[in-house]
Amino acid sequence: MIKIIVDCFGGDRSPRAQVEGALSSLAGNPDLHLLLTGDEALLKKELEGRAYDASRLEIVHAPEVIGCDEKPTDAIRLKRNSSMMKAMIMLRDEEEIDGMVSCGSTGALVTGALVRLGRIPGVIRPAFCPILPTMAGGIVGICDSGANVTVTAAHLRQFAIMASLYMENVYGVKAPRTALLNVGKEAEKGDDIRQEAYRLLQETECVNFVGNMESRDLLSGSYDVVVADGFSGNVLVKTTEGTALELLKKLKKDIYSRWLYKLGALLMKRMFMEEKEFMNYQNYGGSVLLGLEKVVVKGHGSSNAKAVEKCIEQACRMCSSRLSDKIEAEISKYEHYEE
Amino acid sequence: MIKIIVDCFGGDRSPRAQVEGALSSLAGNPDLHLLLTGDEALLKKELEGRAYDASRLEIVHAPEVIGCDEKPTDAIRLKRNSSMMKAMIMLRDEEEIDGMVSCGSTGALVTGALVRLGRIPGVIRPAFCPILPTMAGGIVGICDSGANVTVTAAHLRQFAIMASLYMENVYGVKAPRTALLNVGKEAEKGDDIRQEAYRLLQETECVNFVGNMESRDLLSGSYDVVVADGFSGNVLVKTTEGTALELLKKLKKDIYSRWLYKLGALLMKRMFMEEKEFMNYQNYGGSVLLGLEKVVVKGHGSSNAKAVEKCIEQACRMCSSRLSDKIEAEISKYEHYEE
Repeated sequence: MIKIIVDCFGGDRSPRAQVEGALSSLAGNPDLHLLLTGDEALLKKELEGRAYDASRLEIVHAPEVIGCDEKPTDAIRLKRNSSMMKAMIMLRDEEEIDGMVSCGSTGALVTGALVRLGRIPGVIRPAFCPILPTMAGGIVGICDSGANVTVTAAHLRQFAIMASLYMENVYGVKAPRTALLNVGKEAEKGDDIRQEAYRLLQETECVNFVGNMESRDLLSGSYDVVVADGFSGNVLVKTTEGTALELLKKLKKDIYSRWLYKLGALLMKRMFMEEKEFMNYQNYGGSVLLGLEKVVVKGHGSSNAKAVEKCIEQACRMCSSRLSDKIEAEISKYEHYEE
Repeated sequence: MIKIIVDCFGGDRSPRAQVEGALSSLAGNPDLHLLLTGDEALLKKELEGRAYDASRLEIVHAPEVIGCDEKPTDAIRLKRNSSMMKAMIMLRDEEEIDGMVSCGSTGALVTGALVRLGRIPGVIRPAFCPILPTMAGGIVGICDSGANVTVTAAHLRQFAIMASLYMENVYGVKAPRTALLNVGKEAEKGDDIRQEAYRLLQETECVNFVGNMESRDLLSGSYDVVVADGFSGNVLVKTTEGTALELLKKLKKDIYSRWLYKLGALLMKRMFMEEKEFMNYQNYGGSVLLGLEKVVVKGHGSSNAKAVEKCIEQACRMCSSRLSDKIEAEISKYEHYEE
């Protein structure tokens, strides 16, 4: 039995998307037990008239919601009765709960998890690992993408180990091709931290290190894992998303500027819809926080029911593959550096 | 009279694009005097049969070429007879030469310029400033984008001053909206360097500082200058270019997959050509190295004649607007921090 707690508020389509996603997961996985946090009355109303196995679903009353523009440190301190913090505290305190899924404020989730949840023994810094689709039809994981704005070479090595094991165990990528984000391909590129990390990664047996990667090659399909400090990793992921989004917006605007283009686009409607689906990060699951004892999956704020279902499925795979144990075993092989 | 030296080799279309671009510039600007560096015989052959004002064009023989995969430190030391280093040494030694344009190896150009050329008094670190088009039809300058992988807050302030003056004097952008690249909009985001830079920029009168920018908003048109360390600035620029390029490639591939799409695309041919032109960074001039006493413009390796002409025009505007003097005057108002 896998037990996951789902924060049902704080997303753009809460609580409907969360409830629908939860029920689909429940129907598809007889080994799954779910807890839903949020305003009990609203959740009960959302569940009304739907068919589900009530013996595997619990509601945990948590009337408050953390907004996306609230200061994370205040939110985690003051809103203990919010759907997100309630879920996190239960995840920490109740041994039988394996993981949590939230589509709420990223800042509050990351800050809360780093402060409140236990790390895997040996892990210096947990790190964020979102997934992007590549043009070759695969996916690539970027770790860290924002949990740590400053890092050491030892941190980067740990990110590489954790993200490699994640891609292998959760997505079935064999010996993930792992690269270090840098300003050029040569070993001597970048600052001292990058040069030292390059050396450490070459010596790390469980990582299939393929060298430095320039950011323009992220989507090429040549890499499965990209290791970065949280600052430049964040720039990498958000620039990719931003550029794709802005380009699609421009294309759409230009199409509407002339009837001939509208006609052409009509013939290509299915293709454009496929492109949009391809670029829709909801289809690739949530970002995970690697390095914590328990599983934390962050879904996109605008997640629909299908995206929430994917996040729950992702959490289940992380639990059932015993990813934390594997990370602990590999991390313990290398020297620890204190923060 | 403005005197510019043009490195005619090292680009993908050298020396034809450089020679044609130079002659167009010469024809369009009676105040311009050009020197071309490269193999004399090849340059003479390229000039053969073309009409131009020979009194304003000189050839400087430099038989060697720096390749794009040569190690910059070796190249600038060992290839003093290359078209690029010859141009750089003459730029340094001959007072009447105002600037240089090169489409050769970026690494060699930046390393060479930092080592061989004088800085504007008060400038701690010269920085690279490429231009990208925004979706609002404007442009945005990103400084630094790779010359300095590590920086201090004082460096970032100088980058802001230099890039603002550049956008204002060379592109006519009034009071350029200048933002600091960060992982979130709030003032307290990022590492200590970013937080300190935020404070310094608020106090810098000649900079119209509008706060932090998240990388996903680069192309939105809300910013004229983005200030960054050379590492994350490099990631920002190359990820934008890479994503745009990969998406266009995917679109093209998908269009060719079905005849219906091909038909649709045929109706939209002009639009797609316009999109391609819009995204073609050749249309936006070269990257400049800000903070040097003399002007250095780096054109893209694949520059055609029109792009080379734009780079020369850019160099002329930098010279005639007396950008260096303006940078010196503003920089001198703030405390210097030594490296």
